[in-house]
Amino acid sequence: MVVGEISQERDLIIIGGGPGGYSAAIRGAQLGLSVTLIEQAKMGGVCLNEGCIPSKIFTHAAGKRSETAHLQDLGMGTLDNLFDIKKLVTYKTKVIDQLRSGVESLCNENKIEIIRGKVTFLAVDRIGVENGHQFDIFEFKQVIIATGSSPIMPSIIQEKGERILLPHELFKLEEVPKHLIVRGHDYIALEAASSFAALGAQVSVVIDDQAVFPFDESINKELNRLFKKRKLKIHKELEFIATNETKHGITLTFQTDKNVEETISGSHLFVSGTRRPNLEALGISRFGIVLTGEGFVKVDGNMQSSIPTIYAIGDVTGGPVLAVKAIKQGKAAVASIAGQQTEVDLTFMPVIAHTIPPIVSVGLTEQRARDFGLDVRVSQFALGGNGYATITGKKEGFIKVISDATTEIIQGIHMIGEGAVEMSGSFVQLLEMAAKEEDIKFPHYAHPGFNEGLLEAVEGLIGQAIHAAPVSEKDLSTI
Amino acid sequence: MVVGEISQERDLIIIGGGPGGYSAAIRGAQLGLSVTLIEQAKMGGVCLNEGCIPSKIFTHAAGKRSETAHLQDLGMGTLDNLFDIKKLVTYKTKVIDQLRSGVESLCNENKIEIIRGKVTFLAVDRIGVENGHQFDIFEFKQVIIATGSSPIMPSIIQEKGERILLPHELFKLEEVPKHLIVRGHDYIALEAASSFAALGAQVSVVIDDQAVFPFDESINKELNRLFKKRKLKIHKELEFIATNETKHGITLTFQTDKNVEETISGSHLFVSGTRRPNLEALGISRFGIVLTGEGFVKVDGNMQSSIPTIYAIGDVTGGPVLAVKAIKQGKAAVASIAGQQTEVDLTFMPVIAHTIPPIVSVGLTEQRARDFGLDVRVSQFALGGNGYATITGKKEGFIKVISDATTEIIQGIHMIGEGAVEMSGSFVQLLEMAAKEEDIKFPHYAHPGFNEGLLEAVEGLIGQAIHAAPVSEKDLSTI
Repeated sequence: MVVGEISQERDLIIIGGGPGGYSAAIRGAQLGLSVTLIEQAKMGGVCLNEGCIPSKIFTHAAGKRSETAHLQDLGMGTLDNLFDIKKLVTYKTKVIDQLRSGVESLCNENKIEIIRGKVTFLAVDRIGVENGHQFDIFEFKQVIIATGSSPIMPSIIQEKGERILLPHELFKLEEVPKHLIVRGHDYIALEAASSFAALGAQVSVVIDDQAVFPFDESINKELNRLFKKRKLKIHKELEFIATNETKHGITLTFQTDKNVEETISGSHLFVSGTRRPNLEALGISRFGIVLTGEGFVKVDGNMQSSIPTIYAIGDVTGGPVLAVKAIKQGKAAVASIAGQQTEVDLTFMPVIAHTIPPIVSVGLTEQRARDFGLDVRVSQFALGGNGYATITGKKEGFIKVISDATTEIIQGIHMIGEGAVEMSGSFVQLLEMAAKEEDIKFPHYAHPGFNEGLLEAVEGLIGQAIHAAPVSEKDLSTI
Repeated sequence: MVVGEISQERDLIIIGGGPGGYSAAIRGAQLGLSVTLIEQAKMGGVCLNEGCIPSKIFTHAAGKRSETAHLQDLGMGTLDNLFDIKKLVTYKTKVIDQLRSGVESLCNENKIEIIRGKVTFLAVDRIGVENGHQFDIFEFKQVIIATGSSPIMPSIIQEKGERILLPHELFKLEEVPKHLIVRGHDYIALEAASSFAALGAQVSVVIDDQAVFPFDESINKELNRLFKKRKLKIHKELEFIATNETKHGITLTFQTDKNVEETISGSHLFVSGTRRPNLEALGISRFGIVLTGEGFVKVDGNMQSSIPTIYAIGDVTGGPVLAVKAIKQGKAAVASIAGQQTEVDLTFMPVIAHTIPPIVSVGLTEQRARDFGLDVRVSQFALGGNGYATITGKKEGFIKVISDATTEIIQGIHMIGEGAVEMSGSFVQLLEMAAKEEDIKFPHYAHPGFNEGLLEAVEGLIGQAIHAAPVSEKDLSTI
């Protein structure tokens, strides 16, 4: 190994080139900082290479696949029945390569120094970077840890063969699984279940005891209904005892509430669930950095850790494992390092799943609003009453709005239905701006369009949705 | 003819069952008014039966049709090449029938009296309704005129055969026209041009002298570029002299700026353009109602005309011929009649076209912002830099944001690109709430998602878009 003779000096080092890391690097450059970005694998991180992006490519394809009958209605002739997952995987690789090379170009254009290698902390202001036979030492003024997280294999899985799939393996399959068992209840699990079902797999979703989907209760219920309608099987409240993987398939054993052992068998098992921060290899713990109870880096509102030279963003800071959070925190960290006032508030982080149809949940659920003791108004507008939903053949789902009757301030917006992801920006902005019901009712909305659904959901809070059955005064007081 | 012996008494009569009329009727019922709705043709009016809805069904189908190559990339096999417009027309009829029967059910459920027939005013508080051999007289406390508008045939068209098409004829064609000439520059013309081109027609757009597309200048330019890319021919600044329709086609003659006569020939001509209010047949003018210079009913902020018993909404009041305006005005009119305070403000009416890709323009264009003497900041974010656009194969277009540097209040948002219509609600809400740049930058946006494009457009106002080439201080001051 060649060890650099002297340590080199840098201003700001960012460890990890995922969406949080590279966004922080570029914003740092925009703010006039001199930035060095260190990545040991591929730029773009788990999100771009193995997680959110491949998952969205699959959900996008699945959405298209599910429209075959609708296309025929529109006069398009038939789509032949073949679906070639290898082509989709090729498309996925092409898109990811494009996006990754875009990120690399942006870093170059912004004069960000990119270093490849594996980082170890040598002091609170010094790291070593190992790359093959090369080992370099860097001193820095500030460092941002953006190393992300890795999946934790459930304890009942002792050994993992080819039929047990982690996220980075699921989107590389060369054949559509015959029967995919999805274990998990987070958005990655739901997207995998929804898209592989649409792409032709038999799908069973198995959910641990006590676990629930991460949305408003009505949405969770509707998602259950729609999954069943699409012949996805859902098994809930399971206490797993064992997995058994053979050459030909996989069997999960679980205990029912009557203490009977049952099994479910499939061709593949996809495991989505808890993740652990990628911290250990950094060797940072020996410098006394304060961690949370769950082992994540404890940071303040500026993303600064207990060690002033060290900042942390994204998955390593705990909380929801979402790129959107990492990006926001990354921008905040560099703004703070550049001497700007900054603030990250996760209150109105949207929870999103690109299922068929997609789901968005922002702000308080009905239950939480009631728990807070608000004078809750609730309205649920069925997309069956929306003209554009009828035109496009996407009548499933609804928009649910929760407001506080005293202030008329909107508290939560939850949607399952076509257009939800595109409309989610509006939902978050409205909640951030503490919009009142009138702020949604006053504007003009494209006719016909899905946005009219939000308008009608809000009009429905006082029984004035146009395209919904009339509500009596009595009903209104009890919804 | 059987004439009703005595005049019958009603509270509120609404003349016309288009989106403005039926929305007003339902809202009126919700507010406790007793409502009678009179329609001489089909419920839903021009919008539902002949205009916006059929146009959106065609643009929707065209959008799907244009994705054939993308579907193959996703592994879907081939869509056979046949396109059967008859099937699409059948689908259109089915959807419209569904929507119309929905509207009729809602009226029934809201206990709205529906009367069929042709209305003539007999006094400022009395009308006659003719239906076949039946003639009934109604007295009312208030009436709302919501009779809409009809297309005006351009003066150079003396006679109209089957090859000259008005909106209600375009969406009934049993064959895709070989070469469709579209005359017009409004959203209906653009949607027709865009969708028939995608459905297989050769399309030429011919635009009168001085006419321009109704969006921000950059969007108009991009639309031109994309139309050309899709092999639509655009002929601008034409002075038409004659049309000649034969059994086999149609020829337009126009004069070039060099006073040379030229011609353009096609198989069909679609004419979109100016419309006149449907007022004459009502015989209302003889009661001294005040009209605007262009012959529309003059109304105040409550939609009340110069005759206190008479209100008017939608196309008969002039201005943009849009359902969204009629709906808003209809709700305002009944609210006012029910004694509520009300207000209609058309400032932030979105201008929308479901072209491929779709377009939305809200608020000030760059030019108008400059004309107003604002300290204009402009930023244009190309969707090529948006991850979700790359995933979904929809990289064309951009989002353009205009703000005032002094106040940082957003003045205009203009988008050409996938997701524009779904995001338009957000644009209008932001402008209505006088959002500042920070109000768009602070929230969290789905990653990956089109909403990130809006965020980056706003970040770009001060050169801080992440996924765009770096901007120098100098460039920034001149964009």
